[in-house]
Amino acid sequence: MSAMGRWEPNARGRLAQAAMELFQELGYARTTVEGIAARAGLTERTFFRYFTDKREVLFSGSADLERFIVETIAHAPRTMAPLDAVVSALEATAPFFEERRGYARKRRAVIAAHGELRERELIKLASLALAVAASLRTRGVSAPTAALAAEAGVAVFRNAFERWVDDREQRLLSGHIQAALKELRAVTAVTAGAGTSSPRLRPTKPSRRRRPNTQRPA
Amino acid sequence: MSAMGRWEPNARGRLAQAAMELFQELGYARTTVEGIAARAGLTERTFFRYFTDKREVLFSGSADLERFIVETIAHAPRTMAPLDAVVSALEATAPFFEERRGYARKRRAVIAAHGELRERELIKLASLALAVAASLRTRGVSAPTAALAAEAGVAVFRNAFERWVDDREQRLLSGHIQAALKELRAVTAVTAGAGTSSPRLRPTKPSRRRRPNTQRPA
Repeated sequence: MSAMGRWEPNARGRLAQAAMELFQELGYARTTVEGIAARAGLTERTFFRYFTDKREVLFSGSADLERFIVETIAHAPRTMAPLDAVVSALEATAPFFEERRGYARKRRAVIAAHGELRERELIKLASLALAVAASLRTRGVSAPTAALAAEAGVAVFRNAFERWVDDREQRLLSGHIQAALKELRAVTAVTAGAGTSSPRLRPTKPSRRRRPNTQRPA
Repeated sequence: MSAMGRWEPNARGRLAQAAMELFQELGYARTTVEGIAARAGLTERTFFRYFTDKREVLFSGSADLERFIVETIAHAPRTMAPLDAVVSALEATAPFFEERRGYARKRRAVIAAHGELRERELIKLASLALAVAASLRTRGVSAPTAALAAEAGVAVFRNAFERWVDDREQRLLSGHIQAALKELRAVTAVTAGAGTSSPRLRPTKPSRRRRPNTQRPA
Protein backbone atom coordinates (compact mmCIF):
# COMPACT_ATOMS: atom_id res chain seq x y z
CA MET A 1 0.00 0.00 0.00
CA SER A 2 1.23 3.47 -0.82
CA ALA A 3 1.46 6.24 1.73
CA MET A 4 -1.30 8.10 -0.12
CA GLY A 5 -4.16 6.49 1.74
CA ARG A 6 -2.55 6.96 5.12
CA TRP A 7 -4.36 8.90 7.83
CA GLU A 8 -2.65 12.25 8.31
CA PRO A 9 -2.96 13.91 11.71
CA ASN A 10 -4.56 17.33 11.41
CA ALA A 11 -4.47 17.17 7.61
CA ARG A 12 -7.40 19.59 7.38
CA GLY A 13 -5.64 22.23 9.46
CA ARG A 14 -2.37 21.83 7.55
CA LEU A 15 -4.16 22.17 4.22
CA ALA A 16 -6.03 25.28 5.38
CA GLN A 17 -2.83 26.87 6.65
CA ALA A 18 -0.98 26.03 3.41
CA ALA A 19 -3.84 27.40 1.30
CA MET A 20 -3.86 30.67 3.22
CA GLU A 21 -0.08 31.05 2.81
CA LEU A 22 -0.35 30.52 -0.94
CA PHE A 23 -3.37 32.85 -1.29
CA GLN A 24 -1.17 35.53 0.27
CA GLU A 25 2.01 34.74 -1.64
CA LEU A 26 0.63 34.01 -5.12
CA GLY A 27 -2.86 35.46 -4.93
CA TYR A 28 -6.07 33.44 -4.87
CA ALA A 29 -6.35 33.05 -8.65
CA ARG A 30 -2.87 31.58 -9.10
CA THR A 31 -3.12 29.14 -6.20
CA THR A 32 -3.81 25.55 -7.24
CA VAL A 33 -4.95 22.51 -5.30
CA GLU A 34 -1.71 20.81 -6.39
CA GLY A 35 0.29 23.68 -4.86
CA ILE A 36 -1.72 23.62 -1.62
CA ALA A 37 -1.22 19.89 -1.19
CA ALA A 38 2.53 20.17 -1.92
CA ARG A 39 2.95 23.03 0.56
CA ALA A 40 1.16 20.98 3.23
CA GLY A 41 3.31 17.94 2.43
CA LEU A 42 0.20 15.97 1.48
CA THR A 43 -1.28 14.57 -1.70
CA GLU A 44 -4.04 16.07 -3.85
CA ARG A 45 -6.05 12.99 -3.00
CA THR A 46 -5.86 13.92 0.66
CA PHE A 47 -6.91 17.48 -0.20
CA PHE A 48 -10.04 16.22 -1.93
CA ARG A 49 -10.91 14.10 1.08
CA TYR A 50 -11.51 17.36 2.99
CA PHE A 51 -12.41 20.01 0.40
CA THR A 52 -14.13 20.02 -2.98
CA ASP A 53 -11.97 22.88 -4.29
CA LYS A 54 -9.73 25.73 -3.12
CA ARG A 55 -12.70 28.01 -2.45
CA GLU A 56 -14.11 25.46 -0.05
CA VAL A 57 -11.04 25.89 2.17
CA LEU A 58 -12.34 29.36 3.03
CA PHE A 59 -15.94 28.33 3.69
CA SER A 60 -15.98 24.71 4.82
CA GLY A 61 -16.20 25.65 8.51
CA SER A 62 -19.41 27.60 8.16
CA ALA A 63 -21.77 24.60 8.11
CA ASP A 64 -20.39 23.30 11.43
CA LEU A 65 -20.57 26.76 12.90
CA GLU A 66 -24.18 27.20 11.79
CA ARG A 67 -25.11 23.85 13.30
CA PHE A 68 -23.45 24.76 16.60
CA ILE A 69 -25.26 28.13 16.75
CA VAL A 70 -28.65 26.63 15.87
CA GLU A 71 -28.28 23.95 18.55
CA THR A 72 -27.14 26.44 21.17
CA ILE A 73 -30.23 28.57 20.50
CA ALA A 74 -32.48 25.53 20.65
CA HIS A 75 -31.08 24.66 24.10
CA ALA A 76 -31.11 28.17 25.58
CA PRO A 77 -33.25 28.62 28.71
CA ARG A 78 -36.93 28.97 27.82
CA THR A 79 -37.10 32.33 29.59
CA MET A 80 -34.38 33.89 27.48
CA ALA A 81 -35.58 36.64 25.13
CA PRO A 82 -35.06 35.89 21.39
CA LEU A 83 -32.26 38.37 20.74
CA ASP A 84 -30.48 37.35 23.95
CA ALA A 85 -30.65 33.70 22.89
CA VAL A 86 -29.18 34.59 19.48
CA VAL A 87 -26.39 36.81 20.79
CA SER A 88 -25.58 34.32 23.52
CA ALA A 89 -25.20 31.53 20.94
CA LEU A 90 -23.04 33.73 18.71
CA GLU A 91 -20.89 34.64 21.70
CA ALA A 92 -20.46 30.96 22.46
CA THR A 93 -18.44 30.69 19.22
CA ALA A 94 -15.91 33.25 20.49
CA PRO A 95 -13.44 30.79 22.08
CA PHE A 96 -13.18 29.01 18.72
CA PHE A 97 -12.36 32.25 16.88
CA GLU A 98 -10.18 33.64 19.66
CA GLU A 99 -7.53 31.06 18.80
CA ARG A 100 -7.64 32.02 15.14
CA ARG A 101 -7.51 35.81 14.88
CA GLY A 102 -4.49 35.82 12.58
CA TYR A 103 -6.11 33.27 10.28
CA ALA A 104 -9.37 35.26 10.31
CA ARG A 105 -7.50 38.41 9.28
CA LYS A 106 -5.80 36.69 6.34
CA ARG A 107 -9.03 35.03 5.31
CA ARG A 108 -10.82 38.36 5.28
CA ALA A 109 -8.12 39.95 3.11
CA VAL A 110 -8.47 37.17 0.51
CA ILE A 111 -12.26 37.44 0.51
CA ALA A 112 -12.24 41.24 0.30
CA ALA A 113 -10.09 41.07 -2.84
CA HIS A 114 -12.49 38.84 -4.83
CA GLY A 115 -16.07 39.67 -5.71
CA GLU A 116 -16.97 36.01 -6.09
CA LEU A 117 -15.73 35.29 -2.54
CA ARG A 118 -17.45 38.35 -1.08
CA GLU A 119 -20.69 37.09 -2.60
CA ARG A 120 -20.13 33.62 -1.15
CA GLU A 121 -19.56 35.15 2.30
CA LEU A 122 -22.78 37.18 2.05
CA ILE A 123 -24.72 34.08 1.12
CA LYS A 124 -23.29 32.13 4.06
CA LEU A 125 -24.34 34.91 6.44
CA ALA A 126 -27.83 35.08 4.93
CA SER A 127 -28.09 31.31 5.31
CA LEU A 128 -27.01 31.65 8.95
CA ALA A 129 -29.73 34.27 9.60
CA LEU A 130 -32.37 31.96 8.07
CA ALA A 131 -31.18 29.02 10.19
CA VAL A 132 -31.17 31.16 13.34
CA ALA A 133 -34.72 32.36 12.61
CA ALA A 134 -35.87 28.76 12.10
CA SER A 135 -34.29 27.78 15.41
CA LEU A 136 -36.10 30.62 17.20
CA ARG A 137 -39.40 29.51 15.67
CA THR A 138 -38.92 26.08 17.22
CA ARG A 139 -38.81 27.93 20.57
CA GLY A 140 -42.28 29.32 19.86
CA VAL A 141 -41.10 32.74 18.68
CA SER A 142 -43.40 34.22 16.02
CA ALA A 143 -42.06 34.29 12.46
CA PRO A 144 -41.70 38.09 12.17
CA THR A 145 -39.94 38.42 15.52
CA ALA A 146 -37.73 35.43 14.75
CA ALA A 147 -36.65 36.93 11.42
CA LEU A 148 -35.85 40.33 12.92
CA ALA A 149 -34.06 38.93 15.97
CA ALA A 150 -31.99 36.66 13.70
CA GLU A 151 -31.03 39.49 11.35
CA ALA A 152 -30.27 41.86 14.21
CA GLY A 153 -28.13 39.21 15.93
CA VAL A 154 -26.19 38.37 12.76
CA ALA A 155 -25.65 42.10 12.08
CA VAL A 156 -24.25 42.51 15.60
CA PHE A 157 -21.96 39.52 15.13
CA ARG A 158 -20.72 40.61 11.71
CA ASN A 159 -19.94 44.13 12.87
CA ALA A 160 -18.26 42.86 16.04
CA PHE A 161 -16.23 40.33 14.06
CA GLU A 162 -14.90 43.02 11.70
CA ARG A 163 -13.81 45.17 14.61
CA TRP A 164 -12.28 42.22 16.44
CA VAL A 165 -10.22 41.26 13.37
CA ASP A 166 -8.89 44.83 13.12
CA ASP A 167 -8.41 45.42 16.84
CA ARG A 168 -4.81 46.40 17.49
CA GLU A 169 -5.42 46.10 21.20
CA GLN A 170 -6.38 42.44 20.83
CA ARG A 171 -9.55 42.79 22.86
CA LEU A 172 -11.73 39.70 22.95
CA LEU A 173 -14.48 38.96 20.44
CA SER A 174 -17.06 38.63 23.22
CA GLY A 175 -16.31 42.21 24.28
CA HIS A 176 -16.81 43.43 20.73
CA ILE A 177 -20.10 41.51 20.51
CA GLN A 178 -21.37 43.12 23.70
CA ALA A 179 -20.27 46.57 22.52
CA ALA A 180 -22.04 46.11 19.15
CA LEU A 181 -25.18 44.88 20.90
CA LYS A 182 -25.16 47.95 23.09
CA GLU A 183 -24.79 50.13 19.99
CA LEU A 184 -27.64 48.37 18.24
CA ARG A 185 -29.81 48.95 21.30
CA ALA A 186 -28.88 52.63 21.28
CA VAL A 187 -29.64 52.85 17.55
CA THR A 188 -33.06 51.25 17.88
CA ALA A 189 -34.10 53.02 21.07
CA VAL A 190 -36.83 55.55 20.46
CA THR A 191 -35.03 58.90 20.46
CA ALA A 192 -35.84 61.41 23.19
CA GLY A 193 -38.57 63.77 22.13
CA ALA A 194 -39.86 61.49 19.39
CA GLY A 195 -43.27 60.26 20.44
CA THR A 196 -46.01 58.47 18.56
CA SER A 197 -47.30 61.89 17.57
CA SER A 198 -44.12 62.56 15.62
CA PRO A 199 -44.70 62.59 11.85
CA ARG A 200 -42.05 59.91 11.37
CA LEU A 201 -43.50 57.62 14.01
CA ARG A 202 -46.93 56.98 12.57
CA PRO A 203 -49.41 54.58 14.12
CA THR A 204 -47.93 51.13 13.77
CA LYS A 205 -51.20 49.42 12.96
CA PRO A 206 -51.11 49.05 9.19
CA SER A 207 -53.55 51.21 7.33
CA ARG A 208 -56.57 49.48 5.86
CA ARG A 209 -56.93 51.90 3.01
CA ARG A 210 -56.92 50.18 -0.32
CA ARG A 211 -55.21 51.39 -3.41
CA PRO A 212 -55.56 50.18 -6.95
CA ASN A 213 -53.19 47.33 -7.67
CA THR A 214 -52.26 48.19 -11.23
CA GLN A 215 -49.49 45.61 -11.54
CA ARG A 216 -47.59 48.01 -13.76
CA PRO A 217 -43.94 47.07 -13.80
CA ALA A 218 -41.02 49.36 -13.06
CA MET B 1 -34.30 54.70 -41.93
CA SER B 2 -35.88 51.59 -40.50
CA ALA B 3 -38.35 51.66 -37.66
CA MET B 4 -35.80 49.86 -35.44
CA GLY B 5 -34.11 53.02 -34.21
CA ARG B 6 -37.42 54.70 -33.43
CA TRP B 7 -38.12 55.93 -29.92
CA GLU B 8 -40.73 53.70 -28.30
CA PRO B 9 -42.88 55.21 -25.57
CA ASN B 10 -42.48 53.29 -22.31
CA ALA B 11 -40.40 50.60 -23.99
CA ARG B 12 -38.71 49.74 -20.71
CA GLY B 13 -42.00 49.11 -18.94
CA ARG B 14 -43.37 47.04 -21.83
CA LEU B 15 -40.22 44.91 -21.93
CA ALA B 16 -40.31 44.35 -18.16
CA GLN B 17 -43.98 43.35 -18.30
CA ALA B 18 -43.35 41.02 -21.26
CA ALA B 19 -40.35 39.43 -19.50
CA MET B 20 -42.36 38.79 -16.37
CA GLU B 21 -45.18 37.17 -18.37
CA LEU B 22 -42.73 34.86 -20.10
CA PHE B 23 -40.86 34.01 -16.89
CA GLN B 24 -44.22 32.84 -15.53
CA GLU B 25 -45.39 31.04 -18.67
CA LEU B 26 -42.17 29.36 -19.81
CA GLY B 27 -39.97 29.61 -16.74
CA TYR B 28 -36.92 31.82 -16.38
CA ALA B 29 -34.48 29.40 -18.03
CA ARG B 30 -36.52 28.99 -21.22
CA THR B 31 -37.24 32.69 -21.68
CA THR B 32 -35.07 34.38 -24.32
CA VAL B 33 -34.38 38.04 -25.09
CA GLU B 34 -35.80 37.38 -28.56
CA GLY B 35 -39.03 36.13 -27.00
CA ILE B 36 -39.26 39.07 -24.61
CA ALA B 37 -38.81 41.59 -27.42
CA ALA B 38 -41.38 39.81 -29.60
CA ARG B 39 -43.94 39.70 -26.77
CA ALA B 40 -43.46 43.43 -26.17
CA GLY B 41 -43.78 44.15 -29.91
CA LEU B 42 -40.26 45.56 -29.96
CA THR B 43 -36.93 44.55 -31.44
CA GLU B 44 -34.03 42.87 -29.66
CA ARG B 45 -32.03 45.98 -30.43
CA THR B 46 -34.49 48.00 -28.39
CA PHE B 47 -34.24 45.45 -25.58
CA PHE B 48 -30.47 45.88 -25.42
CA ARG B 49 -30.86 49.63 -25.25
CA TYR B 50 -32.43 49.15 -21.80
CA PHE B 51 -31.05 45.88 -20.41
CA THR B 52 -27.83 43.92 -20.79
CA ASP B 53 -29.59 40.56 -20.47
CA LYS B 54 -32.82 38.98 -19.20
CA ARG B 55 -31.56 38.88 -15.62
CA GLU B 56 -31.07 42.63 -15.70
CA VAL B 57 -34.82 43.07 -16.22
CA LEU B 58 -35.30 41.91 -12.63
CA PHE B 59 -32.56 44.06 -11.09
CA SER B 60 -32.11 47.16 -13.24
CA GLY B 61 -34.28 49.29 -10.97
CA SER B 62 -32.16 48.75 -7.87
CA ALA B 63 -29.43 51.27 -8.73
CA ASP B 64 -31.99 54.08 -9.12
CA LEU B 65 -33.67 53.04 -5.92
CA GLU B 66 -30.39 52.98 -4.03
CA ARG B 67 -29.53 56.46 -5.31
CA PHE B 68 -32.94 57.77 -4.26
CA ILE B 69 -32.60 56.30 -0.75
CA VAL B 70 -29.04 57.58 -0.29
CA GLU B 71 -30.05 61.10 -1.35
CA THR B 72 -33.12 61.09 0.86
CA ILE B 73 -30.98 60.17 3.87
CA ALA B 74 -28.42 62.84 2.98
CA HIS B 75 -31.18 65.47 2.96
CA ALA B 76 -33.00 64.37 6.11
CA PRO B 77 -33.22 66.95 8.90
CA ARG B 78 -29.98 67.14 10.87
CA THR B 79 -31.79 66.39 14.11
CA MET B 80 -33.19 63.11 12.86
CA ALA B 81 -31.74 60.02 14.58
CA PRO B 82 -29.83 57.63 12.25
CA LEU B 83 -32.37 54.79 12.20
CA ASP B 84 -35.24 57.25 11.77
CA ALA B 85 -33.47 58.80 8.78
CA VAL B 86 -32.97 55.36 7.23
CA VAL B 87 -36.50 54.11 7.81
CA SER B 88 -37.93 57.42 6.64
CA ALA B 89 -35.97 57.17 3.37
CA LEU B 90 -37.04 53.57 2.86
CA GLU B 91 -40.64 54.55 3.53
CA ALA B 92 -40.34 57.28 0.91
CA THR B 93 -40.02 54.52 -1.72
CA ALA B 94 -43.43 53.11 -0.77
CA PRO B 95 -45.52 55.09 -3.29
CA PHE B 96 -43.32 53.69 -6.07
CA PHE B 97 -43.87 50.10 -4.94
CA GLU B 98 -47.52 50.62 -4.03
CA GLU B 99 -48.35 50.84 -7.74
CA ARG B 100 -46.47 47.64 -8.45
CA ARG B 101 -47.52 45.04 -5.89
CA GLY B 102 -48.60 42.51 -8.52
CA TYR B 103 -45.31 42.90 -10.35
CA ALA B 104 -43.36 42.61 -7.09
CA ARG B 105 -45.17 39.36 -6.27
CA LYS B 106 -44.36 37.81 -9.66
CA ARG B 107 -40.78 39.03 -9.47
CA ARG B 108 -40.33 37.44 -6.07
CA ALA B 109 -41.69 34.10 -7.31
CA VAL B 110 -39.16 34.05 -10.17
CA ILE B 111 -36.29 34.99 -7.86
CA ALA B 112 -37.29 32.45 -5.19
CA ALA B 113 -37.15 29.67 -7.78
CA HIS B 114 -33.54 30.31 -8.87
CA GLY B 115 -30.50 30.19 -6.59
CA GLU B 116 -28.53 32.46 -8.89
CA LEU B 117 -31.26 35.12 -8.69
CA ARG B 118 -31.64 34.75 -4.93
CA GLU B 119 -27.92 35.39 -4.61
CA ARG B 120 -28.14 38.44 -6.85
CA GLU B 121 -30.96 39.81 -4.69
CA LEU B 122 -28.93 39.29 -1.50
CA ILE B 123 -25.99 41.12 -3.04
CA LYS B 124 -28.19 44.06 -4.05
CA LEU B 125 -29.51 44.33 -0.50
CA ALA B 126 -26.01 44.15 0.97
CA SER B 127 -24.93 46.85 -1.46
CA LEU B 128 -27.90 48.96 -0.35
CA ALA B 129 -26.91 48.58 3.32
CA LEU B 130 -23.34 49.67 2.53
CA ALA B 131 -24.59 52.70 0.58
CA VAL B 132 -26.98 53.63 3.40
CA ALA B 133 -24.16 53.37 5.96
CA ALA B 134 -21.95 55.60 3.79
CA SER B 135 -24.75 58.15 3.52
CA LEU B 136 -25.16 58.18 7.32
CA ARG B 137 -21.42 58.73 7.76
CA THR B 138 -21.65 61.87 5.61
CA ARG B 139 -24.13 63.10 8.25
CA GLY B 140 -21.46 62.70 10.91
CA VAL B 141 -22.73 59.38 12.24
CA SER B 142 -19.88 57.18 13.54
CA ALA B 143 -18.95 54.18 11.41
CA PRO B 144 -20.16 51.48 13.85
CA THR B 145 -23.50 53.20 14.45
CA ALA B 146 -23.93 53.87 10.73
CA ALA B 147 -23.33 50.20 9.88
CA LEU B 148 -25.78 48.94 12.49
CA ALA B 149 -28.48 51.51 11.69
CA ALA B 150 -28.15 50.68 7.98
CA GLU B 151 -28.39 46.94 8.55
CA ALA B 152 -31.27 47.31 10.99
CA GLY B 153 -33.12 49.59 8.55
CA VAL B 154 -32.61 47.25 5.60
CA ALA B 155 -33.73 44.28 7.73
CA VAL B 156 -36.91 46.17 8.65
CA PHE B 157 -37.56 47.03 5.00
CA ARG B 158 -36.92 43.53 3.72
CA ASN B 159 -39.19 41.95 6.30
CA ALA B 160 -41.90 44.55 5.72
CA PHE B 161 -41.64 44.11 1.94
CA GLU B 162 -42.11 40.35 2.19
CA ARG B 163 -45.23 40.77 4.30
CA TRP B 164 -46.58 43.51 2.05
CA VAL B 165 -46.18 41.31 -1.04
CA ASP B 166 -48.10 38.50 0.69
CA ASP B 167 -50.72 40.68 2.35
CA ARG B 168 -54.17 39.50 1.29
CA GLU B 169 -55.69 42.56 2.90
CA GLN B 170 -53.66 44.84 0.65
CA ARG B 171 -52.44 47.02 3.50
CA LEU B 172 -49.91 49.64 2.53
CA LEU B 173 -46.16 49.09 2.55
CA SER B 174 -45.63 52.05 4.86
CA GLY B 175 -47.84 50.37 7.48
CA HIS B 176 -45.82 47.17 7.21
CA ILE B 177 -42.59 49.14 7.58
CA GLN B 178 -43.86 50.82 10.74
CA ALA B 179 -45.04 47.49 12.13
CA ALA B 180 -41.66 45.84 11.44
CA LEU B 181 -39.84 48.80 13.01
CA LYS B 182 -41.98 48.45 16.10
CA GLU B 183 -41.15 44.73 16.23
CA LEU B 184 -37.45 45.40 15.86
CA ARG B 185 -37.65 47.87 18.71
CA ALA B 186 -39.42 45.29 20.87
CA VAL B 187 -36.81 42.67 19.94
CA THR B 188 -33.86 44.90 20.83
CA ALA B 189 -35.36 46.41 23.99
CA VAL B 190 -33.60 45.18 27.11
CA THR B 191 -35.93 42.57 28.57
CA ALA B 192 -37.52 43.18 31.94
CA GLY B 193 -35.49 41.71 34.74
CA ALA B 194 -32.28 41.49 32.72
CA GLY B 195 -29.79 43.97 34.10
CA THR B 196 -26.10 44.46 33.52
CA SER B 197 -25.50 42.00 36.32
CA SER B 198 -27.11 39.22 34.29
CA PRO B 199 -24.57 36.67 33.07
CA ARG B 200 -25.63 37.24 29.47
CA LEU B 201 -25.35 41.01 29.71
CA ARG B 202 -21.72 41.41 30.64
CA PRO B 203 -20.02 44.77 30.94
CA THR B 204 -19.96 46.28 27.47
CA LYS B 205 -16.47 47.70 27.79
CA PRO B 206 -14.31 45.18 25.95
CA SER B 207 -11.98 43.18 28.13
CA ARG B 208 -8.32 44.07 27.91
CA ARG B 209 -7.14 40.58 28.71
CA ARG B 210 -4.83 39.21 26.09
CA ARG B 211 -4.82 35.73 24.77
CA PRO B 212 -2.22 33.98 22.69
CA ASN B 213 -2.85 34.56 19.03
CA THR B 214 -1.85 31.20 17.68
CA GLN B 215 -3.09 31.80 14.14
CA ARG B 216 -4.06 28.16 13.91
CA PRO B 217 -6.59 27.70 11.13
CA ALA B 218 -9.93 25.97 11.42
